[in-house]
Parts: sequence; structure tokens; C-alpha cells
Amino acid sequence: MRYSSLMIKTNKEAHEFDSVNATLLQKGGFIERTMAGVYTYLPLGWRVLNKIENIIREEMDKVGTEMLMPALAPRQLWQQTGRQDIDILFMASGANEASIKKNNASYIINPSHEEIITPIAQKIKTSYKDLPFAVYQIQTKFRNEERPKSGLLRGREFRMKDLYSFHATEEDMLDFYEKVKSVYVKIFDRLGIGADTFITQATGGDFTANFSHEFQTICESGEDTVYIDKQAHKAYNKEIVDQEVDKANFCASRTCEVGNIFPLGTKYSEAVGYTYTDQQGKQQPVVMASYGIGSSRVMGVLVEKFNDENGIIWPAQVAPFQIHGVVLNMDNKGTVTQGERVLQQLEENEIEVLWDDRSGVSAGKKLAEADLIGIPWRVVVSKKTGEQVEVKQRKATETKLINLEELVGQVNK
Amino acid sequence: MRYSSLMIKTNKEAHEFDSVNATLLQKGGFIERTMAGVYTYLPLGWRVLNKIENIIREEMDKVGTEMLMPALAPRQLWQQTGRQDIDILFMASGANEASIKKNNASYIINPSHEEIITPIAQKIKTSYKDLPFAVYQIQTKFRNEERPKSGLLRGREFRMKDLYSFHATEEDMLDFYEKVKSVYVKIFDRLGIGADTFITQATGGDFTANFSHEFQTICESGEDTVYIDKQAHKAYNKEIVDQEVDKANFCASRTCEVGNIFPLGTKYSEAVGYTYTDQQGKQQPVVMASYGIGSSRVMGVLVEKFNDENGIIWPAQVAPFQIHGVVLNMDNKGTVTQGERVLQQLEENEIEVLWDDRSGVSAGKKLAEADLIGIPWRVVVSKKTGEQVEVKQRKATETKLINLEELVGQVNK
Repeated sequence: MRYSSLMIKTNKEAHEFDSVNATLLQKGGFIERTMAGVYTYLPLGWRVLNKIENIIREEMDKVGTEMLMPALAPRQLWQQTGRQDIDILFMASGANEASIKKNNASYIINPSHEEIITPIAQKIKTSYKDLPFAVYQIQTKFRNEERPKSGLLRGREFRMKDLYSFHATEEDMLDFYEKVKSVYVKIFDRLGIGADTFITQATGGDFTANFSHEFQTICESGEDTVYIDKQAHKAYNKEIVDQEVDKANFCASRTCEVGNIFPLGTKYSEAVGYTYTDQQGKQQPVVMASYGIGSSRVMGVLVEKFNDENGIIWPAQVAPFQIHGVVLNMDNKGTVTQGERVLQQLEENEIEVLWDDRSGVSAGKKLAEADLIGIPWRVVVSKKTGEQVEVKQRKATETKLINLEELVGQVNK
Repeated sequence: MRYSSLMIKTNKEAHEFDSVNATLLQKGGFIERTMAGVYTYLPLGWRVLNKIENIIREEMDKVGTEMLMPALAPRQLWQQTGRQDIDILFMASGANEASIKKNNASYIINPSHEEIITPIAQKIKTSYKDLPFAVYQIQTKFRNEERPKSGLLRGREFRMKDLYSFHATEEDMLDFYEKVKSVYVKIFDRLGIGADTFITQATGGDFTANFSHEFQTICESGEDTVYIDKQAHKAYNKEIVDQEVDKANFCASRTCEVGNIFPLGTKYSEAVGYTYTDQQGKQQPVVMASYGIGSSRVMGVLVEKFNDENGIIWPAQVAPFQIHGVVLNMDNKGTVTQGERVLQQLEENEIEVLWDDRSGVSAGKKLAEADLIGIPWRVVVSKKTGEQVEVKQRKATETKLINLEELVGQVNK
């Protein structure tokens, strides 16, 4: 894709924000702040978010089926479970007096979807033969945060994958819960943060009276602190460490919660009266669990972790394009022709290319912008190089000449 | 995919709603009403909506670049353009007194995104060299409709594709506008409603003082009336016919607006002061246009148009699966084995299959459910048929035996 057709404007000199991800994502032209805690994903940012969400989707398809629930819900659904007054709820209502007069209702804007999925499951899955089953969605969530901060790490509007599972017994739920835990490990591995992500036990918060588990990734801008035993790749929340173990064995680290899993038990099914008919014809409460991954937050965490003084360094699997092509010497006809040929060959090989062939922009500026954008492979077209192309990896200091087929092979690896 | 892993429960006897699409989509297990004008897309419905949106996406990628704008926006953005009081606006605010006390702000929930994209474009695209450009998104919209009705045809929360284009001159905008018009024609053709979709001229409504164009599809539950000259494949809105032409030549028809395009001109750019620097270094107002397609509404229209007394008949390109497999005689080992073999072969050929191998469900019920779900190709496994499979198309009255490779070829056609 030609650079010019994207709505990119990198800005190395831009204003510094309260976190590395907010700063670098805005300098690189990935996101644009619409209001505190609410961002627009520009074409580059949307491509990254999509790649993250597609990795999550591929793994989730192994344990559940995708669907889509709405943002709006009637207040009654939240009254049934006693969560109608939790602080982070947004409410939607008419914006002017005439419309309020006509339709004086107000609706909850869902920050999570236990209240929506449970009554639907109750209508559809009513026999022991229907259980277990699990559904998920990747969707926008809304939370009325008093102080949204740290770019994509804590927003009022953000993207999330949420999975809900339904079971006949606690035992079956816990089996499935462990299965999802290992799928989560796989997801964070694929996203490039597996080694720095720890599962910690936590309280259930607004969701459940039981324990829950958090997936915490080491990250300086993170809001949480966990105590890590790196040797055993284990970590504990502060509250747990305070009560149970000797702090001396652990190393405290700031972390960001990228996922969480809640063994909800029968809290929601009992609230709405969701039972199934067992083999003896008796009604039994359905046992539930829910599982979240903040996909936009993961995008922020990736930037927090993978950057240098020149900009972002995306892991290849989530980079907006596979190769960033930079054509220098746009006044030289031979260079332009060579550039067109390379672009065509890469596209014929189905490589996703961001192609910067702007004229009137200096070599220094093009290369600095490529650093800010952070695509791991770069092709520089500055002179005739025959069948070879001049290549530089984002972190390398030097370029090298390699055959195009070899480049394609390495990029697709 | 096995029938049991989807959250489907068809219900032939379900309650009739106010429109064919609301009734058939709920009977078929595609959507579930969460509140008036707000629906959950169950796995089957989500697959259909995705296919519709992917067709739109493929065509839109030819004229613009995808991005994602948020649902929430500060009120000031809407005050700038004077639309802060239009009736269909929803407002978001804290849901309890404590949260309102802490954060007594309220935000607009965007029903459209001219107010969001224009100031972003203003920051990024400022030179004549940057123009023209166009960006689009496929996203959820919110409108505080007093009386949402007709299932997916008029909702409070719905899915929409919106494209925005930016130009140096009115002439360039009108050129691009015609190009998008023809892309829209292609999209509605691919969606199977091209022959019944007419472009009519209309007023600009809340969007522009200029005329606009609507894409109106003949549909009995539609809210609009257009006057059609079928021979010339032309249509006119009522207001235009009243003023300009002789009604006698036209046939009045109920229609549903599936798309619209607005030559906005400089209305929004002037409201926010968005100018570009021309070749002489002078500031000129940017000329804009916007273009919508209601993807969830299209889903409703397809059901309104393609159905019979037994249920939906999806056009193949948007059907939730390519083939619906029904295994009868689940007590017979030979049938079960034959079924598994056929399923495996179809999946090896990358055919999307919905496979109904439930035991304890009668043949009549399975076939009736397949009719309700409306997948165009059906494979019935009821006895040994060697290398051949028993096939029935949704609208056919009889089954026929064909070779599996032939079936794969026909399904992929």
C-alpha cells in the first residue's frame, strides 16, 4: 500500500503524553485521542489491533463460538444481578429535552456482558445435553473511569474479547477453566509477551465472590504490582504475598493486567434463575465462568515493551505491514523504476508492504518515520542493486543486500 | 461445525413479530432481542453479518482505507457543527449519583462520524498534495429512535459502514462521488439485491443543505415509498415525483433505504475551520462527502426478500454456512459412519459445513430446522450411497444423488 493512501502523519516532535504507549502511538500515527480515555484507531493502528484480535480469535475458536452482543441493555438486566449501581457504569439517555420527553428511558452501556449472555443462554440451552458450551465476542466496552490514563492501558471506551462458559457441574467448569488458562498462555506467547506474563490469583472484584486469576504482564506503566519468582515463573498479587509468603524470595514488579478469568460459579445463573434439567429430570443451577482479554490494552502493552529511542519495534506478527519500503532519490528515474519493480514483486508474493515513495521528502525524514512506525523489516531503494534488495531490520544498525526470494522467505518465517 | 457447538435454537412456533425479518431471524436462531431496537447476534447471525460486512469491506478497500472511530465523543465536537441537539442523539453519563458526582461529564454517543473524522483530517491532511483521500469504518452506531421497529430495519443500535472523502475541489469530489456510486451498485449486486435496488435523489436531511442520493431496495416492510420506472431502472422519491414528473408513468413501491451518499461540500470543513494549502500557498476549504451502508439493515432486507413459508433462503454468498448436513437414522451405525466420512471430505475441501448429527431428534424436525436456517445447499445422510451424496437445494422439492466432487464444485461456483 502506498504511504500516501493511508491517513498517516508521524510527528517525532509531538508532545509527550503520560505513558510511552500514548506518546509513541500518537507520534507514529497509529491512534488519535478523541477525548480522555477514548481513541480513534487510524489506518495503521487499526491494522495492528486487527492482527492482535485475529490471533485471539484463532485461539478462541478452539474453545468457543463467536457472536456479538450489543452495547445497550435495559437497566432491569443489571438490577437482576444487583450490579445496577457499580461505579464504572455508563448510562445512555436522550441528549435533548424533546427527545427525553418523547422517550424518557435510560439504558446501561455494558461494561461486561454476563447480564446479557446469561438470560440468552437460559432461553436456548436448558438440558444437560446442551452443556457445556462456550461463546465469545470481540467488541467495544464502555467504563466510566474517573481518571482514564496511560493511553490504551486504561480507557473509557476500549476493545475486549470476552468468553462465557456454561457447565453442569463445578468440576466440569474447573476443567474447562484450566483449558482456557492454557489457551491464554498460548495467546500471550503468540503476541510476543508470553515470557513476561504471569498468572496471579486475585479476588473476584465485582464479578464473583470466588478467587479469580489475572494475567499480568511486566510493564513499567502498569497500575499493578506483583511479586515474581522468576525462576519458577510464578507470581503473586500483593494481597496474597502479604498474607501467605515471605516477600524476601520475590522481586516486586509493576505489571499491567492483560487478561483475567473468573470462575463465576452460580452467581449469575442464580440471579436470573437459570437452571438446566439433569438426567433425572431435576432442575440444577448452571455453573458459569467468564474470561476477558483487553485487546486494545494488549496493543498498549506491546508498545510499552517493544520500543527504543527512535520509536516502536513491533513484533512481526502484529506489525501493521510486513515490510516498510522506503524509496530514496525519487528524482532519479532508475531508482524509481527499481522501486516499482521491487514493490510489484513483493506484492506478487503477497507480502504486506507499506511503500513510501513520496517525492519532496528527505531521506532522513523517511527513515526516521520508518523507525517511528516500527515495522520489523525495511527495504531501502536508493540505487540500482540488480536482483538484490537492500534490507535493514528495525533493530539492526546496518543494511545488507539479499535476494528478493530470500527476503520473502525470511519475512514469512 | 457441529450443530451442537453453536448456540442455536430454532423455534418454528415462536411468536410473530412486526416484520418478516424480525420473525424469521428469531425463529431461525440468528438474533435475539435484548431490548426494543437492540439485538444480540447469535453465532449463526454473526456469521451472516460478517459475510455481508466482508463483501462491503472488499469493495470499500478499492476506494478508501479502513480505520475505527469511537462511539463516545465530547459534546463540543457536535456543538461546532450545530448538531448537538438533533433528536436522535444519545448521551452517555454516569449511572449512579456517586459516579456523577465524581465525573459529572456527559458525552455524545455518535450516530454518525462527520464530527469525529473532520478534526482528525484537519490535523493530518493539510496540503493540496494530501488530497484527495478517503477513509472508512465498519462500526456500531447508536440512534435514540422513538419507535424502533421492523427488526433489523430500524434499530437504536445497529451496524454501519461509513466512508468519508476529502477533496480540493467540488469537481474532484463529484468525480469520486460517482465512483463510489458505482462501487455501491457493485456491492448491492454482490449482496443479491442489485436488481431491486434503485438510486433516488433526496434531500440532505441533517447532513447537508445539498441533495443526496439514497439506495432504496424494494421491500414490503420498508418505511419509504419510491416511484419506479422499471423499464429504465430508474426511481424517484415521492417529493421529487410530486414536483417534477407525471406519476402515471411510475409504479409506486415500498422500499427500504440500504445506503446513502451525501455530497457534504464544505459544511463540516467550514464548521471546524478545516482548510488546505493550495499550490499558491493560499488556504482553501476542503470539500467533503460521506457515504453510508447499513450492514445490519441489509441483513434484515435480505430476509424480507428471500424467504418462503418454511423460513429464510439465504443468497449463497451470505449464508452462514455453505452446506447444511443432516444425518438421519442416527441409530444406524452405517449411516453414522457414512455421515462422518462425508463431513470429513467436505471439511477437507474447505467447505463451511453446519453438521446436524444430533441423536434423539426426529428427521422431520431436523429438516424443518434446516428450512428455517435457510442454507442454500443441503446434504442428507439417511442410507448408504457409496461415493455419491444425497443433495437438496433449499428451494428444490426433490433430492438428487451426485458425486461429492461435483457438489464441491457447484457449491464453490
